[in-house]
Amino acid sequence: MRLISHFALAFLAAFATLAIAQNDPLPSWNNGPAKQSIVQFVNDTTTLGSPKFVTKGERIATFDQDGTLWVEHPLYSFVMYALEQVPALVKAKPELGKVPPFSTALEVLKGDHAAMDKLTMKDLEIILAATYSNRTVEQFNTEVTKWIAQAKDPRWKRPYTELTYLPMQELLAYLRANGFKTFIVTGGGQDFVRTYSERVYGIPPEQVVGTAGVVKYGYAKDGKPYLFKEPKLLLNDDFTGKPEGIHLMIGRRPIMAVGNSAGDRQMLEYTHAGNGANLSMLVLHDDAKREYAYGPAQGLPPTKVGTFTQGLYDQAKKQGWTVISMKDDWRKIFAFD
Amino acid sequence: MRLISHFALAFLAAFATLAIAQNDPLPSWNNGPAKQSIVQFVNDTTTLGSPKFVTKGERIATFDQDGTLWVEHPLYSFVMYALEQVPALVKAKPELGKVPPFSTALEVLKGDHAAMDKLTMKDLEIILAATYSNRTVEQFNTEVTKWIAQAKDPRWKRPYTELTYLPMQELLAYLRANGFKTFIVTGGGQDFVRTYSERVYGIPPEQVVGTAGVVKYGYAKDGKPYLFKEPKLLLNDDFTGKPEGIHLMIGRRPIMAVGNSAGDRQMLEYTHAGNGANLSMLVLHDDAKREYAYGPAQGLPPTKVGTFTQGLYDQAKKQGWTVISMKDDWRKIFAFD
Repeated sequence: MRLISHFALAFLAAFATLAIAQNDPLPSWNNGPAKQSIVQFVNDTTTLGSPKFVTKGERIATFDQDGTLWVEHPLYSFVMYALEQVPALVKAKPELGKVPPFSTALEVLKGDHAAMDKLTMKDLEIILAATYSNRTVEQFNTEVTKWIAQAKDPRWKRPYTELTYLPMQELLAYLRANGFKTFIVTGGGQDFVRTYSERVYGIPPEQVVGTAGVVKYGYAKDGKPYLFKEPKLLLNDDFTGKPEGIHLMIGRRPIMAVGNSAGDRQMLEYTHAGNGANLSMLVLHDDAKREYAYGPAQGLPPTKVGTFTQGLYDQAKKQGWTVISMKDDWRKIFAFD
Repeated sequence: MRLISHFALAFLAAFATLAIAQNDPLPSWNNGPAKQSIVQFVNDTTTLGSPKFVTKGERIATFDQDGTLWVEHPLYSFVMYALEQVPALVKAKPELGKVPPFSTALEVLKGDHAAMDKLTMKDLEIILAATYSNRTVEQFNTEVTKWIAQAKDPRWKRPYTELTYLPMQELLAYLRANGFKTFIVTGGGQDFVRTYSERVYGIPPEQVVGTAGVVKYGYAKDGKPYLFKEPKLLLNDDFTGKPEGIHLMIGRRPIMAVGNSAGDRQMLEYTHAGNGANLSMLVLHDDAKREYAYGPAQGLPPTKVGTFTQGLYDQAKKQGWTVISMKDDWRKIFAFD
């Protein structure tokens, strides 16, 4: 009798553990403060009668992409795409290949990593403007779709689209299941990210806000209308451009925002300054083994990507944003782990 | 027996008619070619296995607002709002009241209808830029919300928000029930329309594309961040600006578009030029009794609003867009009729 009872209890305990695991919408998150603040926030904002209840339409959550939803190191994939278009550009206009920044880009592509450090932000902007424009919207979509299907990350030798963070995919799904509308708000090219956002994150193109150029309506010789990508910036969706872009494209203040670098600071501040319940979260890249550790908080020099400064970390602590430690808060980082 | 049978048949017939009426998603539409083309299009694009089937995410429908979803005559409400802000503007800067176009605006407000004709499009743009800017996004929202609650149309003496076309409200609901995502694409102020779009049309702010100014991120004295509306145009969402704005804000080509004036031409063309199934529709204001009849197609001179040209009508016929006659296709125009 006692034996049976013990056996039954053990069975029940095992069953209960399984049931909890199955009901856990965030299984790749360790049960630390970051996960707790997410679950608390979702419960608070979705429970009718809760003082922090938020109506469904106002449940807007915005996510930075590079370094927040997927790997950004050693180089943003939207910049990698631009660099890899330079040879075709130089083939069409050989004089470009003789002068920086295009000559420098060619050196980088030849494997000269030191050349990468020569490229300033201004240089990258010139290369981005030249490679993201002078074609129709359809041509660009076709080219990016082709590129992203074959391009591979240098470390994992996998397509960039497989290097999304599993805990973040779970978070996106969890929020949507609770009536949140999820948006990407990226410093990367809006048209670039929109080509794969639905397939990769379940986020449709109209819920991607990004850096956008001017497009111009015109007619082909056969009379068919088209939209042509001009080499002119319309919205630089980074730093102050993030809340500005959110207003332009979404029109209301998010109640939740997640970012990882200085370019996300204003979006996180703006979200946190809302009148009702809100949650601003900062991803800390502190896992040198499973991913990367970078930014001054880790004692490493700043890099071109994902500049996570001590000041940003201090602001997060001071204003009560939640810091996500990849090392401590994430049980698994990639689906293929 | 025969009597009972007749009675039963009559009962069944009455019941069937009632059932059809209840199942009709577009009861305010007469059973003419416009309604038929809508129902056919929705069936074609939503029936699995149909050669014209369109996946749910691609079912994007865009609607012009003024003259398409609600009354635009004698003056767009978003322009009326701007004119009514001029006295406060002149009070703050008295020198403005002494020169056109602000002095002209004051005459219009005093009831001088001839003065309205003096205002050119350029004048209206100057007035719009001055009255839609130099305040925070929140201040503007509060002011518009207050204005729209009390402003009344001169003919019907009702709030503008009650002057939406019932057949269009039914069409929006019908499309959404069939997995379409409905957007407003308006030449009017994006921030203006977003204050009431959800309440009035069931269209959330993030699904409103309109004429938009630059907003600038800054900090108040207490350190709180805010967005400030600058008197600088970012997107003129009219004519070629409509497909350009659709690309910027939505990122894919609509499969259905509805408009009523020359400013909608490029949106209708662009939608019609898509590769798959598509439906472009043009509302013809030909009901002088229940609403208005205007535009050269009615033998009336062009007006400041809703310029429906003969050329546009000819293009619709030539390209196979569907023309909606308010007189013939709409059984009822307003919910209060």
